[in-house]
Amino acid sequence: MEKLIYTGKAKQMWSTDDENILRVVYMDQATALNGKKKDQIEGKGHVNNEISTLIFEYLAKNAIPTHFIKKISSTEELVKKVKIFPLEFVTRNIAAGHFATRFGVEEGLAFKKPVEETYYKSDELDDPFMNESQALALEIATETELQSIWQISRKVNVLLTKLFEKAGMQLVDFKLEFGCLTDGTIVLADEFSPDNCRLWDLTTKKHMDKDVYRRELGDITSVYEEVLRRLRNELAKEVQ
Amino acid sequence: MEKLIYTGKAKQMWSTDDENILRVVYMDQATALNGKKKDQIEGKGHVNNEISTLIFEYLAKNAIPTHFIKKISSTEELVKKVKIFPLEFVTRNIAAGHFATRFGVEEGLAFKKPVEETYYKSDELDDPFMNESQALALEIATETELQSIWQISRKVNVLLTKLFEKAGMQLVDFKLEFGCLTDGTIVLADEFSPDNCRLWDLTTKKHMDKDVYRRELGDITSVYEEVLRRLRNELAKEVQ
Ligand SMILES: Nc1ncnc2c1ncn2[C@@H]1O[C@H](COP(=O)(O)OP(=O)(O)O)[C@@H](O)[C@H]1O
Ligand SMILES: Nc1ncnc2c1ncn2[C@@H]1O[C@H](COP(=O)(O)OP(=O)(O)O)[C@@H](O)[C@H]1O
Ligand SMILES: [Mg+2]
Ligand SMILES: [Mg+2]
Repeated sequence: MEKLIYTGKAKQMWSTDDENILRVVYMDQATALNGKKKDQIEGKGHVNNEISTLIFEYLAKNAIPTHFIKKISSTEELVKKVKIFPLEFVTRNIAAGHFATRFGVEEGLAFKKPVEETYYKSDELDDPFMNESQALALEIATETELQSIWQISRKVNVLLTKLFEKAGMQLVDFKLEFGCLTDGTIVLADEFSPDNCRLWDLTTKKHMDKDVYRRELGDITSVYEEVLRRLRNELAKEVQ
Repeated sequence: MEKLIYTGKAKQMWSTDDENILRVVYMDQATALNGKKKDQIEGKGHVNNEISTLIFEYLAKNAIPTHFIKKISSTEELVKKVKIFPLEFVTRNIAAGHFATRFGVEEGLAFKKPVEETYYKSDELDDPFMNESQALALEIATETELQSIWQISRKVNVLLTKLFEKAGMQLVDFKLEFGCLTDGTIVLADEFSPDNCRLWDLTTKKHMDKDVYRRELGDITSVYEEVLRRLRNELAKEVQ
């Protein structure tokens, strides 16, 4: 019997007959400000499922270990169940959002070397920014685990920066989550969609990500569909 | 002609006839909440000057490079002028204050390995917490500089944890500042006093630091004088 294990801000996680496999349902919901702003948005679940599937398949093909098994419907996929590290791993290529306001720099400043940040996944504590030494002291992960995770993150950044660039978008920043399989292997988990990255049109610098929702700049589903279209075109070329 | 270069929250910095030397005046002033709470406190300047002098002399004797030259009056000292890194280097042996509230842990949790944090010194930005990768990206310090600074900080922690323990106090956490001499040498600068560390009585766990002011637990001058008395006793023993 399938059971609803968790309803998050964007997805539901269901158990399946196989205890090592979860069914993910992408919902038509957007949130911001740690859940304080929340809306139903038709078509969002579908487009995120499509984008995340394309990205996870692309990463897997490029030797990144992931939880992804397969897409099973327009809004659902199967993934390997993992023990999630309660950390968000953020990589920034260009200053934007919180980073820009927090440190008083302009959105658009390009970093020579990507900035790497971790946040403690805790809704009650408002996902506080945390450094490595704090994560170690609170025994949230070991030094070896953090090193392996950042190694994977850096590869993901190189792969996706190139892919999005070829598809006409700048990968400004993104958030990843990681977990452990039962045998201890660390894999990329959760999703990769415009909900948890920033994408700017290469030439117009137009926002093509959740900032469209956060800053109320327009209809996010059609923007996300444009991202999906560009990715599909690019990936179709690569296959040839 | 001496000129007032800077009036901070606790000290004034004056130029001297020697362009490489500054005169520091410890003021009878306490602030909290980044300056929002502020009071005149008789005797505080004197006691902090005395404590900081003892500590800097003790550290210098133990091979820590510092800006300190000498105490010249009850509230004044001479120091080598440095180019300050706009970072506060915090070391925590035990969870307290912001750390405890930020991550939802109890004050008093002892860490297996000290926690190390940097904050960006900027009154306008409210001294934001910053990680190493952010400091590098904003070119606030180089990787080599940060490594040298943390190496010195770790030695300071070992030396002062022992010293305070022998004097009946637990060194819970502390904030250091560092700067560069004209020849590029990195030295410990600013002050070391109960204004920028947490000290708990070893047996009663009584607060013997600025938390007495922040949390309005009593008269800070007499508490700081007790810290000074204990340090003096201990250091007198060590000389014998
Ligand atoms: N493979 C996986 N196994 C177990 N949990 C996962 C896996 N992938 C993602 N998760 C977790 O499932 C939840 C996904 O739902 P989401 O709506 O993103 O939640 P949230 O509101 O916490 O961001 C997240 O808490 C995420 O950490
Ligand atoms: N040796 C030094 N040379 C130059 N500046 C110093 C030196 N030591 C400390 N400082 C700076 O002088 C100021 C001391 O005054 P303080 O009242 O502590 O200021 P603040 O309100 O910024 O904490 C600080 O900004 C500190 O960084
Ligand atoms: Mg999520
Ligand atoms: Mg100060």
